[in-house]
Order: sequence, then C-alpha cells, then structure tokens
Amino acid sequence: MSDERLQRGWDTVRKINASAAQQQWDELTAVYPDFARYIVHSAYADVLARPALPLREREIATLAALTALGNAPGQLKAHIEGALNVGLTREEICEVLMQMAVYAGVPAAINAMKIAGEVFGGRET
Amino acid sequence: MSDERLQRGWDTVRKINASAAQQQWDELTAVYPDFARYIVHSAYADVLARPALPLREREIATLAALTALGNAPGQLKAHIEGALNVGLTREEICEVLMQMAVYAGVPAAINAMKIAGEVFGGRET
Amino acid sequence: MSDERLQRGWDTVRKINASAAQQQWDELTAVYPDFARYIVHSAYADVLARPALPLREREIATLAALTALGNAPGQLKAHIEGALNVGLTREEICEVLMQMAVYAGVPAAINAMKIAGEVFGGRET
Amino acid sequence: MSDERLQRGWDTVRKINASAAQQQWDELTAVYPDFARYIVHSAYADVLARPALPLREREIATLAALTALGNAPGQLKAHIEGALNVGLTREEICEVLMQMAVYAGVPAAINAMKIAGEVFGGRET
Amino acid sequence: MSDERLQRGWDTVRKINASAAQQQWDELTAVYPDFARYIVHSAYADVLARPALPLREREIATLAALTALGNAPGQLKAHIEGALNVGLTREEICEVLMQMAVYAGVPAAINAMKIAGEVFGGRET
Amino acid sequence: MSDERLQRGWDTVRKINASAAQQQWDELTAVYPDFARYIVHSAYADVLARPALPLREREIATLAALTALGNAPGQLKAHIEGALNVGLTREEICEVLMQMAVYAGVPAAINAMKIAGEVFGGRET
Repeated sequence: MSDERLQRGWDTVRKINASAAQQQWDELTAVYPDFARYIVHSAYADVLARPALPLREREIATLAALTALGNAPGQLKAHIEGALNVGLTREEICEVLMQMAVYAGVPAAINAMKIAGEVFGGRET
Repeated sequence: MSDERLQRGWDTVRKINASAAQQQWDELTAVYPDFARYIVHSAYADVLARPALPLREREIATLAALTALGNAPGQLKAHIEGALNVGLTREEICEVLMQMAVYAGVPAAINAMKIAGEVFGGRET
Repeated sequence: MSDERLQRGWDTVRKINASAAQQQWDELTAVYPDFARYIVHSAYADVLARPALPLREREIATLAALTALGNAPGQLKAHIEGALNVGLTREEICEVLMQMAVYAGVPAAINAMKIAGEVFGGRET
Repeated sequence: MSDERLQRGWDTVRKINASAAQQQWDELTAVYPDFARYIVHSAYADVLARPALPLREREIATLAALTALGNAPGQLKAHIEGALNVGLTREEICEVLMQMAVYAGVPAAINAMKIAGEVFGGRET
Repeated sequence: MSDERLQRGWDTVRKINASAAQQQWDELTAVYPDFARYIVHSAYADVLARPALPLREREIATLAALTALGNAPGQLKAHIEGALNVGLTREEICEVLMQMAVYAGVPAAINAMKIAGEVFGGRET
Repeated sequence: MSDERLQRGWDTVRKINASAAQQQWDELTAVYPDFARYIVHSAYADVLARPALPLREREIATLAALTALGNAPGQLKAHIEGALNVGLTREEICEVLMQMAVYAGVPAAINAMKIAGEVFGGRET
C-alpha cells in the first residue's frame, strides 16, 4: 500500500473531521495498527475521496446510514460535526435525521437528534 | 386528517416516483386502507414534502438508508428510479450505494448495486 | 432431552400453526435433525409453552418482532396465520403491523402488510 | 396540523408514560421543535391512539420491537414503565422479553432484561 | 429440566468465561430466575457444549456475530475474554474483528476493536 | 491501485469460491466496474488474504456474520460453498449456523440452514 494512497485518505479525513479522525487513529493504532491504516485506505482513499460525489452529499449519505443503523453513536457525532464542516446547516442536518424516522423508525431518529443536540450545544456556530 | 394534507403528500409522491407509489397505494389499500393513507400523510406530507431539504438530497438519504438497512429491495428499486427522476445521474447513485460498503458492509452494497443494475437496464436514460 | 419436553413443544406448535411447523420440521430434519429438535425444545417447549402469557399475546409479540427485524418473511407468514389461529382478527393483526412503522420504519411495516395481504387473500376467514 | 391532533396524541402519551414523554419532548424541542411535534402527531395521534387495539397489547408489541431491535435502551426503559402503567405485571413483561431470545437472540433479551431490572428496582410496585 | 443439563451448561460456561457468566447469572437471577436458567440450558448445554465444533472455533463464530450485530458490547467484551481463555491470540481476535468491516461495515468493526483494546489493556497476557 | 493488489485479491477469491466470485464480478462490472474492483481490493486483498488467520477460520467468521445479519442470502450460499472448499465438513457448517440461533435468533438460523440444505443437495460431496 503506497504512501500516495494514505496521503489521499488523510486529505479527505481532514476535510471532514480532522480532530475526531486523529483521535480514532490514535485509539485504533494502540490496538491494531493495520486496522487503523485499513480505514484510511479503504474507506477514505478508495471511497470517500472519489470526486464523483461532493463531500456535502457524501455526508448526507453517511448521516442517513449511521442514523438508520444506529450502531455507532460516536461516529455519528463525528459525522454531524463533519457535516457542519463541509457546509450543511443545522436545519439541513436535522432534516436528514428526521427523515430517518420514516425509513428506520422513530427511536432511531430520536437517538440521532439527541446526539445532534449535544454537538450543536458545544459549538459557537 | 385533512384533504390538504393528503394532497401535499401526493404532490411529493408524484415528483419522486408516481407509478411505483400508485401501485403500492393500490396494494396496501386492498389490505388495510388506513395504513396506505398513513404513509402518504406521515411519510410524504409531514416529512418528505418539507422544503428545508431539496428532493435530490432527500433521495440520497433514502438510498443510503435503504441500502444500509437492506430490508426493502422493492422500495430501494422504487427510490433508485425516484433518484433518477429528481435528477441524480447513474454514476452519482452508484457512488451512494458504493459508499454504503463502508458503513454497512460489502454485502449490503452488492445487493443494492444489483438492484441498480436492474433499474438501469430497463430504462432508456 | 426427554420425550416429555418434545411433546410439550409440539402441543404448542400445533396450537399456533401445525401445518407450517410440520413443513419446517421436515425441511430442517432433512438438513440437520438436531437443529429441528432444538427449535421444538428450546423455542416452543421452553419459552412459548410457558403459561404466564396467553398465546394470543405471545403472537402479538412475535408479529411485532418479525415485522421489526424483517429477516424472515416465511416465518412472519406462518405467524400471521398463527395469530389468526389463536384468535386475533385481521384488523388487530394489521394494527400490530402498522404500529411497527413507528418503531422500525415504514418499509418494514409495508413488507409485513403485503405478507398479511397474501395470507388473508388465501383464506376463507 | 390541527390542535385536535396534538391533543389526541398527548392524551395517549399520558396514559403510557407522561413523565418520560414530557422529558423527551423538552429535550427534542430544544434541538428541533418540528420533530418533537412530529412524534406526538405521527406516532401517538395517528397510530398508538387508534382504538382497534388496547394499549396493553400495543405495549406488548412495543416491548417486543424495542427488545428485538435493541437500538433504543432509553425508550425501552420508558415503555417498560409504560407497560406497568397500562396494566402488565412484572412477570408478563419478563415473559415478553424472554420470548425475544427466540426471535432476536439471547443477547438482545439479556440487554432488555437488565433494563427491566433497573425499572423494577426503582419502583414500589 | 434435569440437573444433568444444567451441569453440562455450566461446564461449558466455565471453559469460556466463568467470572463474567457468574456475574450475568447473578444479575439475571435477581430479575427473572427462569431466564437465567434458560440461557445456561438453551445456549450453553444445548448448543455451545456440543462436541462437533471446538470451543476455539465457536468463539470465532461468536465474536463475528456479536461484532456484526453490534447490539451487545458487554457480551462482546465477555467473549473477547473467552476467546483468549480458549486459546486465540490477540492478533487472531483482531483479525476476526477487522474482517467484520467487510461484512458489517467499518463502524461495527471499530466499535469491537475498541472493546478489544479495553480487554487487552486490563490483562497481563 | 496496483496489479499486484488485484492479483493477491483474486488468488484468495479463487481459494474460496472461484465460480461464484467470477459471476459476481461479471454482474457488478456491468453496473459499476469501480465497485467490482473495490471488492477484490478492499475485501479480498486487504483483509481476507492476510495470513494471520487461516481461510478455514475466516470462513467460520463469514458464515456467522452472514447468518446473523441475514441480509445477503446469495452471498451466504456462496460462502457455504466456500466453507466446503476450504475444508469444513457439512456438520461443522451446520454447527456454526445452529449456534447463530443463540446470538441472532432462531429465524436467522433457520433461513441459513435452508440455504445450506440447497447447497448440500446440489453437490456430490
């Protein structure tokens, strides 16, 4: 796996949520370094960095998936921050989460909305 | 529940996928009419019709959720058609589905991509 | 595992849906007989046969779970038949399925309602 | 959306678990008020308030779904309290949760049973 | 249910993770004793104690399932300890968890890897 | 992405289930070629080809995950064939699937056992 691929992955990571990604990298590297690298390579360099969809729309898809699956509140929090970072407004984020009540049920949407509340409460903008 | 609410729901239904929605309405009305109305009211009039997010971005969220949950191939097919109807390209749709390999696993994305193949194969554009 | 336990399991099976259970027993016995016996023992004799909840209310719980999980349409069909067999009306069954739109999302409830339509369409009462 | 619909929703909310619902309303209103109203309208007024199924049986279905899905421990807690409020005994509630071991696996049922233990431990009756 | 069956279950429990199982037994017995016994009987005596698959390979299957489902972090922790107890190395455990990124998505694997990190951090070997 | 990586992926693919993989490659290449390549790279070359766990044990993990998730019957079928190809016996495969009744519920295990029956019925050994 080339340095170029790792670089491309980190470039995308940084546009979405540099601090959350750094913290996750550190945590996972302490457990199993190959897995930390795999995520940057396979998720960020090979998928999220692809130019065919802008990061704004990729974050909408990610918010929808993490809300619907409901299996990763920490990562949903990081991507609500990421969605703000790539230009979504708070209202737009809440609309995506609310829409998930239709597709994944009301409890899934409530869980996500509470996480959004935590993120919004801790930020200036 | 007012006629106005039903009307607003159907207006949104028709922008996304009028023929699939009509077929589903007919099928569900034959089983339990209140449930057919509930969907138009509660999903379409009360959520999807809200102007705070354009239908293009709502369909991205819906494709992501249905691919990640993997529980409704018929409805995913209807919304891949719907995504084309509201202006996403085939490439953009495939990017959303491919991105779900990261969040929901490769099998979920494969299932969705095969459904996209069926939709694309049956259309001129 | 005693004969008494197998007998108690089958007594409960027969109250819910004897013909669907017999067919499943035959199919699974052809693949792995220990697993077929395990289901009668562990699911029916040890849980569903317990007198602390009537079968009518156990079937409501089963319909809710199978609709929400959405992973077993064949078994949902067998338990919609079973719910009718232990005394639920068609309207009551549809109310349980419709309620799942709130907890598991509209697509899960639609899938189940279509299966209910198949069951109802093939029965006199 | 009419006042009558909001009123009907709150009437049902209060029969199940008034204090938990009020707390959730306050939390969600602070994040996105339209979503708080949507839940009372769409979940409570349009579904749970329907008279075709008594609240006792609706709560059985809700306990089954939330245990099986396992995605909302806070809401499962509120509905175990709600089930007691509408007349289920502790034993009946435990039977519903135990039955979910069959349909959703032992871990899902264990998680729910521990939440039931917390609820029971904090109440007189 | 015979004493022999309970004994066989506990023999298997103890080979995997005696202390975690005892704690869970105590917790569940305080809520609903029949459910605590059901788990030892139905999960351990009737399935995990079967000799046709060694415990090492059963624990691989359990780690994979709990990581993929993501619904029971406490039990995943107990089974990562159990996997070490029946002879898997830390590296082998991490490989199973990492493999789940392919089948269940990256977030599910990250959650599990962090739990593995907690287990490893608290043990000498 | 280098040729070496694609080669390493295909080497692993062929050890598990060459014909099913070729068919899937052809289907996905017709829809979105980048996604077909992504699977060989990211799932096979970067994860399943890693030598730290033998393919026999990787297939146990895969069978467990696909049975528990229940979202990909076609891929479960391909991996039951793959498990036979890398040396598991029919009995060992059935034990893995049966064990999933404990972790993911009886319906998930029944679905998988029926697929195993189809695979076994169509093979000499």
